[in-house]
Amino acid sequence: MDISRRVFRSYGFSPIDTPALEYAEILTGKGGEESDKQLFQFKDGGNRDVAMRFDLTVPLARFTAQHLAEIGTPFKRYHIAPVWRGENTQRGRYREFVQCDFDTIGTEANGSDVETLLVIHDLMVALGFERFTIRVNNRLVLNGVLDRLGLVDKTVAVLRSLDKLEKIGVESVVAEMVERIGVTETQARQVLDIANPNITLDELTPWLEGNEIGLAGIHRLQELFSASKTAGIPPERVKLDVSIARGLDYYTGTIFETFLSDLPTIGSVCSGGRYDNLAGLFTKQPLPGVGASLGLDRLLTAMEELNLIGSQATPAPVLVTQFDSTRLGDYLRIGRLLRTEGIPAEVYPEATKLGKQLKYADRKGFRVALIAGSDEFAKGVWQIKDLSSGQSTAVEEARLARTILEILQQSD
Amino acid sequence: MDISRRVFRSYGFSPIDTPALEYAEILTGKGGEESDKQLFQFKDGGNRDVAMRFDLTVPLARFTAQHLAEIGTPFKRYHIAPVWRGENTQRGRYREFVQCDFDTIGTEANGSDVETLLVIHDLMVALGFERFTIRVNNRLVLNGVLDRLGLVDKTVAVLRSLDKLEKIGVESVVAEMVERIGVTETQARQVLDIANPNITLDELTPWLEGNEIGLAGIHRLQELFSASKTAGIPPERVKLDVSIARGLDYYTGTIFETFLSDLPTIGSVCSGGRYDNLAGLFTKQPLPGVGASLGLDRLLTAMEELNLIGSQATPAPVLVTQFDSTRLGDYLRIGRLLRTEGIPAEVYPEATKLGKQLKYADRKGFRVALIAGSDEFAKGVWQIKDLSSGQSTAVEEARLARTILEILQQSD
Repeated sequence: MDISRRVFRSYGFSPIDTPALEYAEILTGKGGEESDKQLFQFKDGGNRDVAMRFDLTVPLARFTAQHLAEIGTPFKRYHIAPVWRGENTQRGRYREFVQCDFDTIGTEANGSDVETLLVIHDLMVALGFERFTIRVNNRLVLNGVLDRLGLVDKTVAVLRSLDKLEKIGVESVVAEMVERIGVTETQARQVLDIANPNITLDELTPWLEGNEIGLAGIHRLQELFSASKTAGIPPERVKLDVSIARGLDYYTGTIFETFLSDLPTIGSVCSGGRYDNLAGLFTKQPLPGVGASLGLDRLLTAMEELNLIGSQATPAPVLVTQFDSTRLGDYLRIGRLLRTEGIPAEVYPEATKLGKQLKYADRKGFRVALIAGSDEFAKGVWQIKDLSSGQSTAVEEARLARTILEILQQSD
Repeated sequence: MDISRRVFRSYGFSPIDTPALEYAEILTGKGGEESDKQLFQFKDGGNRDVAMRFDLTVPLARFTAQHLAEIGTPFKRYHIAPVWRGENTQRGRYREFVQCDFDTIGTEANGSDVETLLVIHDLMVALGFERFTIRVNNRLVLNGVLDRLGLVDKTVAVLRSLDKLEKIGVESVVAEMVERIGVTETQARQVLDIANPNITLDELTPWLEGNEIGLAGIHRLQELFSASKTAGIPPERVKLDVSIARGLDYYTGTIFETFLSDLPTIGSVCSGGRYDNLAGLFTKQPLPGVGASLGLDRLLTAMEELNLIGSQATPAPVLVTQFDSTRLGDYLRIGRLLRTEGIPAEVYPEATKLGKQLKYADRKGFRVALIAGSDEFAKGVWQIKDLSSGQSTAVEEARLARTILEILQQSD
């Protein structure tokens, strides 16, 4: 969450927060029947129906509809906060989980689509991932193709069928399209040809001749590939995938999904796209936007499996131990001195046995421990104990921060 | 919240979060009758009674009682999160507000009390405050004094009376103590002598002769004053105040309250202290601790009144404007280049009129804007527009980050 905050801010996204409780009428009917059922709903002290938010999108829509005039556009916000969905089981379970969304509201510019891709990319790298692919698609392209094939009125059914491709295979999808949806076998095979994961934009273009909207989609994708490459994103990490069908009933333009090469089965860890009308339910002003949502649960699972999470249980690399109980002020002083040099430092609260303090240091994963008793105070030095190597060095106080910084940089 | 996170972490406090919803039985009866009434309570999908937390202390107690064996002590955590208290009014109001707590659990060491003072001090400075006083008291001292005066069984009533001192004045407090509590006038005046805001530890000591617990309290306060001074805290910012009575039924040792010299009437903006038994309701293991809570609402009010909050509405100081729509990739590239140098930068999403983009920059408080059209691209330079002075300078791309850093440092 800290890393994603830093990346979002570096791109100029501002944090917002909205209340966990909204009036129930704001939330009901916005996420479908299932979502209504899972809503935690009750009456507040004034007998009004309130409910706990089930996602961050509906509150964002309510918020922008209410405040957009003051905020102005483009409005770039991120929101990392818990949402609640009650599982209707016998075991009395409830679920709270954190969502992590970022969006750019109030502009149709493709620049924001490309930027969304850049943020996803830089976020993944900042989290420590190297082998991943951001798959992109555009709803306009798929619409155009289906239009050309005369299948526009069957869009939803065709997409739902397409979504099963990986699970049931080509022949079963063809069969399903022919039998259940009523397309011809030729049409079905054409859809599958186009949705093939290796198709290029150049190969797609002929399918859209004369279809302006579809060609506009192609153009946006072309710009996305070329501009992100110019901006320094390795091209092998960005891939066209016309088969991305999930979420197509919500997104109206660009679509993103992010897959880890080492854990493809975990699914997309960051998904998003462009939508036309965020706040249609709350305002008549059209509010286009583009954004994505980081799947924190999946990412955490992946980071654990790929050993990207260290065992460090302290935010501070330095433990100042206490040896001489009459020198509390000095131990606290050296902690503050290190902090002013940008080095987080924890001071052990009391002068118990040094072994106990070093065991604590070990368990919590500190990088170095500082030790000083009467000898050191007399000489004006501190013993720096490197907790990886076990080696100790006596260092003058004036050189302390610099020496510790050098040790910390080594271990990075 | 970001600043407090940074300060907490610099002292080795780790973030924790607990669910907003707890089983109702965990929360009821823990905060008194009023708190039970304000509890948002309902049944989850499995028909279990759940409720929204009304503070962060009860969840911390539940959490430590459950997990302390794995975590070990000292356990230093901070928690910044919303809590909910329903106001039982006709107008259907509900209240959500953010609490910001930090605590050191599992140690009685005075080192943690002094550190708590240091954190409060460094936090206030980091937030931009210069004129403030942290008033300290110790429950043991007041207990000892009341013991010596033979008033131990009237402690609560005496403290409640004492708490009105500023509001109703000395004579009314004396009258109230005599008439309602049944102390002698001599006793009442002695209490007020001792509770006088200018009393020193040396003047207090004779009142506690022979009272070991009281003298232990004096000793802890002495160490607090001397160690915090050695650690670099200006002594004029730390003041003994035996009249601090609020919260005394919860705290059992050191007590802190923080007042702004320029806004004393706003009340304490950061309060805390030492308690004996955090989790007594959940475990038999005694869990001493010390901590404090930052009053975010009051602090924000104060920061607004004292103009400590800038009008900047963007986390990025640099806006990269777009002039040539065919160069989207280059504008995005320069944004990423600045970010790798640690400079947050926002790229305007499209090449609209430059005036419109600069107006956006102005409204959101960017510090500099970057501008480049075909001339600049041909020469490999960027125009840096200083948005305070209005001056523009053409700078080679290789020197861009350094030049911007210089401008940003000037305005710090």
